Amino acid sequence: MQNLFDNTICAPATARGGAIAVIRVSGLHALRCVDGIFSGRTSLADAPGYSIHYGEIHEADGTLLDEVVVSVFRAPYSYTGENAVEIACHGSEYIVSRILSLLLAGGAKMAAPGEFTQRAFLHGKMDLSQAEAVADVIAAQTAAAHRIAMKQLKGGFSSELAGMRAELLHLASLMELELDFSEEEVEFADRTQLRELVGNVLTHCEKLIESFHLGNAIKNGVPVAIVGNTNAGKSTLLNALLGESRAIVSDIPGTTRDTVEETLNLDGVLFRFIDTAGLRDSDDTIERIGIERAYDKLATAQLVLAMLDLTAPPGELLASAQNIASRVTEDQQLIFLLNKADVVPVDVNAEARRALSPLLSNPGRQLYAISAKAGVGLEDLRQTLTTTWRNLDTASETTLVTNTRHLEALQNAANALRRVRDGLGIADADPAQGIPTDLLAQDLRESLYHLGTIVGEVSTDEILGNIFRNFCIGK
Amino acid sequence: MQNLFDNTICAPATARGGAIAVIRVSGLHALRCVDGIFSGRTSLADAPGYSIHYGEIHEADGTLLDEVVVSVFRAPYSYTGENAVEIACHGSEYIVSRILSLLLAGGAKMAAPGEFTQRAFLHGKMDLSQAEAVADVIAAQTAAAHRIAMKQLKGGFSSELAGMRAELLHLASLMELELDFSEEEVEFADRTQLRELVGNVLTHCEKLIESFHLGNAIKNGVPVAIVGNTNAGKSTLLNALLGESRAIVSDIPGTTRDTVEETLNLDGVLFRFIDTAGLRDSDDTIERIGIERAYDKLATAQLVLAMLDLTAPPGELLASAQNIASRVTEDQQLIFLLNKADVVPVDVNAEARRALSPLLSNPGRQLYAISAKAGVGLEDLRQTLTTTWRNLDTASETTLVTNTRHLEALQNAANALRRVRDGLGIADADPAQGIPTDLLAQDLRESLYHLGTIVGEVSTDEILGNIFRNFCIGK
Repeated sequence: MQNLFDNTICAPATARGGAIAVIRVSGLHALRCVDGIFSGRTSLADAPGYSIHYGEIHEADGTLLDEVVVSVFRAPYSYTGENAVEIACHGSEYIVSRILSLLLAGGAKMAAPGEFTQRAFLHGKMDLSQAEAVADVIAAQTAAAHRIAMKQLKGGFSSELAGMRAELLHLASLMELELDFSEEEVEFADRTQLRELVGNVLTHCEKLIESFHLGNAIKNGVPVAIVGNTNAGKSTLLNALLGESRAIVSDIPGTTRDTVEETLNLDGVLFRFIDTAGLRDSDDTIERIGIERAYDKLATAQLVLAMLDLTAPPGELLASAQNIASRVTEDQQLIFLLNKADVVPVDVNAEARRALSPLLSNPGRQLYAISAKAGVGLEDLRQTLTTTWRNLDTASETTLVTNTRHLEALQNAANALRRVRDGLGIADADPAQGIPTDLLAQDLRESLYHLGTIVGEVSTDEILGNIFRNFCIGK
Repeated sequence: MQNLFDNTICAPATARGGAIAVIRVSGLHALRCVDGIFSGRTSLADAPGYSIHYGEIHEADGTLLDEVVVSVFRAPYSYTGENAVEIACHGSEYIVSRILSLLLAGGAKMAAPGEFTQRAFLHGKMDLSQAEAVADVIAAQTAAAHRIAMKQLKGGFSSELAGMRAELLHLASLMELELDFSEEEVEFADRTQLRELVGNVLTHCEKLIESFHLGNAIKNGVPVAIVGNTNAGKSTLLNALLGESRAIVSDIPGTTRDTVEETLNLDGVLFRFIDTAGLRDSDDTIERIGIERAYDKLATAQLVLAMLDLTAPPGELLASAQNIASRVTEDQQLIFLLNKADVVPVDVNAEARRALSPLLSNPGRQLYAISAKAGVGLEDLRQTLTTTWRNLDTASETTLVTNTRHLEALQNAANALRRVRDGLGIADADPAQGIPTDLLAQDLRESLYHLGTIVGEVSTDEILGNIFRNFCIGK
């Protein structure tokens, strides 16, 4: 079998367009590989780790390609844990592509997405949840998202999981002991103690599962559904909020690939605005599918902005508001926006407020008269948004789960633990109906397995492939 | 007076969006400045040059911001010639902006565009033409452009200029000698020798001036004017050429700021396509200004593509071709493109070829029947373009001037030298009309001055400002 680490990989580690570019090379023969194209004062093969070397890289025909600064790292003291070299050259696409070509000609391979981090994992430099945190650290746009990702990268989440697994292993050993002596009908383990142990870990698991709600909002943005007809002023509102805050906007293709979500960083809180235009009764089948989808998105939003058009007939406005209100749960925040307030007489505005007042009795509901176009009333709205969700930032002292793979593993572990807990309970209440201890032990092992997948103590090529394929090249 | 180098500057040196980002810090206190935010095993103040240090950067409140790898450079062995530190962190915009904030809080200043390179120049690490070459090296998209820029960066152009200046200084010393003894009516310098010396340097100057034609084509792309009505298929042609070659396209704002030029890299040769739509007689004043501008562009193009619409009436087609041909000089290459050949009967095509044949007698003129839309005939056109201009690549062994600032300085130097040459000639032919040697010496000093501005032996804050303001931050 070919040794994976005989393969030396290379890739650009910096984006196009800067003053300098860095090319990463990693593998058993990384130093020899770079030595083949690099002319410096000394051979890199003799260079100690953590040393820097100035020199030139030439084309095969002797033409000078660039003056470069090369950093040498020696296994295991490198990012990947292998021998590694970083070549800093002028930030020219032409030079970067030529240096990569020369490295490939010298026997290196182009790195797959995330391959440097995958090698770091395979060499035990980090566990799987830490490897995943690398991508999160790079993507984090806010202080809160950065803090969660950094905590995970430094192993905060991993050590928490290690604690849970230690407790479960202790429990398992107690149960195995009972299993060994089961023919003698002796119960070694105290069922109350077992139940307590399982209960503790299960509670911990459930707390982590629950934290995903908040963790996901911090990582991907607080989901905000803007509801209303397309001409109610949704795009205008987004642009106005954007203009006021000079925020970063990016397009995230929605999960269905046919919708586009926009994220907005308002005063350090990330919001993810979800387009749910066109909530109205319809007999058209296609349109009804669209409306169903809009209601689904409404249901997953943490905040609903109901855009109401003051220039529409009062009855229509009220019906629209009532329809939206009836769809919003008590856990969701609902803000009515009476838009186009600048082009209607004040009594229209006042009448609309009166008509809507019964809908505002629930907590977490608010109403603002605005003009998205003229930028009126937006400062209040923006303050409400950011102050309500500012607490995201302080809540991050506890561990928050932000990764759906981790969430699933925790849910699977929790389900297995519930079977153990229930089994112990039934056996206790009525020994005749008792679940055999060996079945409980199997459930326990299953929960250990699922928790183990998070840090990668148990992993398959498929899992690794899924994780690292979403990294970019050079990570 | 405050010492400039008490100021420690910092800036991101890599573009947004990579796996890693590098922040450059340079200045007398660069190490102390980074020490203030960096927790490693040792203090950077004690670190030797060309050493690498792993450590952490924390926020003021103790929160971990990132794990970083720091490279230390000590004056004068750094890019700027000052003490310098490069901080490699995770490629997160959030982390980069926080590290920069911490550095600024610690007393560093944000670097102005090109300030690192400007400091390298001020510390004598490179002359001005080499500093300018840094930007050219980064921007070079083709092997030829890269080779010219790299040669300039390595001082090839500078040493050629040094040779010319040495010859002129020798000449000046001969003339000064004559000046010192002029009252004694003794001619120390042999006028024939003087003329020969001036002639040599002037010829060298003129060769460099002439090289700008080719140098500029390599650096900014061979200027190609596409002439024809807008519906003749110009955009379709560009897209088709692009699609076939999977080339890099970028938009360069034209000099008039109201036109956009497109550059296309076809098989390693860069072409700059210039839009000159709408060449026809007009009484409308505004339109005539536009047409005048189009003719100006036509005049500066090295290659003219005349787009002719085969679906137009034959007389109109011929008149358009004749008008364009009459505007094209013998130094320019002219290619007629009979477009939409796929939608007209073959006899229309044949008739057009017959009608145009008189226009093809001049050398450097060609005709292709194509369909830009269907992609027919484009391979021939593309091959003609790239093989004609492929020689750009081999011609770059000699020095090519690519910079308009250098061109102007050379032209000024040449003008002064011509005055010296002519003065020496007149004085020789008729001593009575002789130009006083002290005036000739002044012209000679002027040519020395102009050549000196290229490498920056003579420079003003204004010149430096103009040069470095076009650099990006971090260079």
